[in-house]
Amino acid sequence: MYKVKVYVTLRESVLDPQGSAVKNALHSMNYKEVEDVRIGKYMELLIEKSDRELNTVVKEMCEKLLANTVIEDYRYEVEEVVAQ
Amino acid sequence: MYKVKVYVTLRESVLDPQGSAVKNALHSMNYKEVEDVRIGKYMELLIEKSDRELNTVVKEMCEKLLANTVIEDYRYEVEEVVAQ
Repeated sequence: MYKVKVYVTLRESVLDPQGSAVKNALHSMNYKEVEDVRIGKYMELLIEKSDRELNTVVKEMCEKLLANTVIEDYRYEVEEVVAQ
Repeated sequence: MYKVKVYVTLRESVLDPQGSAVKNALHSMNYKEVEDVRIGKYMELLIEKSDRELNTVVKEMCEKLLANTVIEDYRYEVEEVVAQ
């Protein structure tokens, strides 16, 4: 069994209104030291071993569903876990 | 300048309908090896050095705004970055 951690973030060139809103809120709470906030998605997938190559499967899932590759980048990390 | 990476995830005991929806979608796309999906938030904050202790500031921001500590857990990592 694998635990795959996927990080999906908006591309640098893409405006992040949600991030700006959080930044303004933090400033209004007197956290003026916050210069920038970027918000993305963090996903943990538990994946059973199969005959298909894990990296291929993960890339396909990211590019077909988990990330919108027009405006988002994704990266992932794989951990082997003991099935519970 | 610090880059702080914050990961906010639902507590294990909390149902994750969004995660279930993504899992079902992946199954319908024939990725049957996916056992479980948990979805959370990933935030990158750029924070200027100040006289306040960084960990204190980050914990406060997480507990007051970035995470709903009733149903979510948070963890973070700190990197020192060169100001652009």
